Amino acid sequence: MLEELKREVYVANMELPKHHLVTFTWGNVSGIDREKGIFAIKPSGVPYEDLTPEAMVLVDLDLNVVEGRFKPSSDTPTHAELYKAIPSIGGVVHTHSPYATSWAQAGRDVPCYGTTHADYFYGDVPCVRSLTKDEIEGEYEKNTGLVILSEFKRLGIDPEAMPAVLCRNHGPFTWGKTPYKAVESSVVLEEVAKMAMWTESIEPKVGKAPQVIQDKHYFRKHGKNAYYGQG
Amino acid sequence: MLEELKREVYVANMELPKHHLVTFTWGNVSGIDREKGIFAIKPSGVPYEDLTPEAMVLVDLDLNVVEGRFKPSSDTPTHAELYKAIPSIGGVVHTHSPYATSWAQAGRDVPCYGTTHADYFYGDVPCVRSLTKDEIEGEYEKNTGLVILSEFKRLGIDPEAMPAVLCRNHGPFTWGKTPYKAVESSVVLEEVAKMAMWTESIEPKVGKAPQVIQDKHYFRKHGKNAYYGQG
Amino acid sequence: MLEELKREVYVANMELPKHHLVTFTWGNVSGIDREKGIFAIKPSGVPYEDLTPEAMVLVDLDLNVVEGRFKPSSDTPTHAELYKAIPSIGGVVHTHSPYATSWAQAGRDVPCYGTTHADYFYGDVPCVRSLTKDEIEGEYEKNTGLVILSEFKRLGIDPEAMPAVLCRNHGPFTWGKTPYKAVESSVVLEEVAKMAMWTESIEPKVGKAPQVIQDKHYFRKHGKNAYYGQG
Amino acid sequence: MLEELKREVYVANMELPKHHLVTFTWGNVSGIDREKGIFAIKPSGVPYEDLTPEAMVLVDLDLNVVEGRFKPSSDTPTHAELYKAIPSIGGVVHTHSPYATSWAQAGRDVPCYGTTHADYFYGDVPCVRSLTKDEIEGEYEKNTGLVILSEFKRLGIDPEAMPAVLCRNHGPFTWGKTPYKAVESSVVLEEVAKMAMWTESIEPKVGKAPQVIQDKHYFRKHGKNAYYGQG
Repeated sequence: MLEELKREVYVANMELPKHHLVTFTWGNVSGIDREKGIFAIKPSGVPYEDLTPEAMVLVDLDLNVVEGRFKPSSDTPTHAELYKAIPSIGGVVHTHSPYATSWAQAGRDVPCYGTTHADYFYGDVPCVRSLTKDEIEGEYEKNTGLVILSEFKRLGIDPEAMPAVLCRNHGPFTWGKTPYKAVESSVVLEEVAKMAMWTESIEPKVGKAPQVIQDKHYFRKHGKNAYYGQG
Repeated sequence: MLEELKREVYVANMELPKHHLVTFTWGNVSGIDREKGIFAIKPSGVPYEDLTPEAMVLVDLDLNVVEGRFKPSSDTPTHAELYKAIPSIGGVVHTHSPYATSWAQAGRDVPCYGTTHADYFYGDVPCVRSLTKDEIEGEYEKNTGLVILSEFKRLGIDPEAMPAVLCRNHGPFTWGKTPYKAVESSVVLEEVAKMAMWTESIEPKVGKAPQVIQDKHYFRKHGKNAYYGQG
Repeated sequence: MLEELKREVYVANMELPKHHLVTFTWGNVSGIDREKGIFAIKPSGVPYEDLTPEAMVLVDLDLNVVEGRFKPSSDTPTHAELYKAIPSIGGVVHTHSPYATSWAQAGRDVPCYGTTHADYFYGDVPCVRSLTKDEIEGEYEKNTGLVILSEFKRLGIDPEAMPAVLCRNHGPFTWGKTPYKAVESSVVLEEVAKMAMWTESIEPKVGKAPQVIQDKHYFRKHGKNAYYGQG
Repeated sequence: MLEELKREVYVANMELPKHHLVTFTWGNVSGIDREKGIFAIKPSGVPYEDLTPEAMVLVDLDLNVVEGRFKPSSDTPTHAELYKAIPSIGGVVHTHSPYATSWAQAGRDVPCYGTTHADYFYGDVPCVRSLTKDEIEGEYEKNTGLVILSEFKRLGIDPEAMPAVLCRNHGPFTWGKTPYKAVESSVVLEEVAKMAMWTESIEPKVGKAPQVIQDKHYFRKHGKNAYYGQG
């Protein structure tokens, strides 16, 4: 069932170790079939070298396992909340990639310091608040998704123009139109998180990139006036 | 003799260069057969590329070499003290992995800043005191083990919930139920030591992760209510 | 047409991932045939693993595509301005290599702290001013080239002795007598940008390398009294 | 002539890229035949991938090329001065390895912060003074060697117990009983230079490792009471 989706999600999962975004099993990619309302996700705690397309677990948006011999990732409820609230996305990624995670641990947004960032993310990548004791002790993984969504709403951030978030004391989630695009956001987030740390090391009083250059680069690659690439 | 154990310890030793935890011969893994009271350990100063399962040295808890054509690691007495004092462990690792060693040189515990840390270690990873002149000039490697154990007792730390320590001005030791689990602790320690340094670089006034999130993540993977993985 | 040039530019482009200077498609190399006034450049947004010599796009100095089934790099107008203003150069490179880009984001010149830098670059590598709103909203990529050139003129910097620049909030451009030499400048820039950051971390009050040592090393490798290498 | 020495020096040179100590041609290893008073050294500016044992250049201690179709490394006179003044050494290495070079650029000794350092180097690794204008404009490479030697004498440092030096604003030289041992010193220097920088980042007020632990580790591996390894 959904062989093509499972294969696509498998391939996207295997991009995580290739881009040095995961240690052991600390990461997972999912991808959704919007018509069926079912998503494929990495099984929980299975090493990347043992993964196969068949090992992907199929889950519906109410978290019922539709197919699969493994338990799905423990982060499955977070993925489901993101899919339910953001209809345009087709893939979600969670990692503990070290630079992005360090910003999450520091409790800071990743400031937009240049065009590398602005080419992919419109504005600073937000670090959303810690969960409360009740949220943690209740449905923790589901509440992680709900906090991301309510913080985006509170801050007026469009999740299509900002396909990444840092969960405080935890790590990043990213998303995109496809599982591969969601992985791409994770790779770019790690790269700009690294450069933002180095930028502040070189110049502690640095300011953000001017808004006009952020607009130029973001809209050079996104929206109806984009002119980057072969598209 | 104990061919299976020697093979397991050999494989675990070879994980150290694979995970970039050692330069030259700066590291060693051992694993114990509790029934026989004999452990297998890497020979001293032999390059990883020359190791074989047969090169592992078998030693009893009184440090008698039971089998092996090489001298055992100079750190053998430290391993023995840990095995004698912590009955539940089956493997011990020592490395000079650079991030963990830098915290040991700095004389600081690695603070728990997030869930990556809390998934494996319950609380800050302690940096225990330097040995005294007498301890150094006496049975140095044995005293290294005794200082770790007396410091854990003094600080009220359970070595099962904290399978890692930094020896001041020296480097880390880790342990676990098996040699492979002990290596896993070394890999995670290096990763969280790296991220803790970066976290403080990004936000010098950062606080530790809230206790409630530390509890959540540690007990999500450990103890009777664990629900991570396929177990 | 110009098969040899396209092959040379292709090979030079493939050096960028080999030296870890690019993520995804974030970089491009061009090379010019001065007699014909035509340069070959990487197509826009095409992954390095899919590049071939035939994929290189031929463009004249008025930005007309002379040959090629792909659109040329979006940075093509910057390359053209550099070729028009600096007759001695045969290759141009743009990357978002992380250390150099971090200095560009910090808005600082890379100071000459040692002989590694002085062997290739005569003086600090300049970080030139941001473009104005008008320059950004007008012919952005062309104006990027014009700002580099006018800043070099204003600062009295000879682009032959300083084959590298940081564009503020953006990243580096480098150049050289050949495409390969331009790539070499990118590699060295990244290396000295990295070491300059570390040097300041080790000693925040560090001063630049004495001029006499900068002169010695630069002229040991450049000009009529050079004596380094087999030349 | 001296085929065995040329092979040994070739192999030692190839260790430099393997251990990530060189970019392009920025490094060289030599090894000496003390009976003949002739040393083999890497040719100047030849890429590592093109090296062969036959490409090594044979030079006597008066800098006459005895055999070889290439020019020897431009650093040859520095190697010669070290061989003439320290009779016990059989190999010399120069690199621009980035951590050690950053300490050299910062103008600081690498402090001994732990046992990794003390296992190989007895005391802080000294950063010796810049050459004067006259020394630079005269026989620069020869004077580089003479400054190392006169600084060691002035500071009372034994070059056998300290087989490494940082030349200010330049980079490291190391040496040892054999070319391979000299390379080993370069690898260790880079590792301890890295960890010393990180140690100070983690704890800016850190003190050096106690002398008693420095003594313990240095003499555990060196001198008549050494007990590390199989020797």
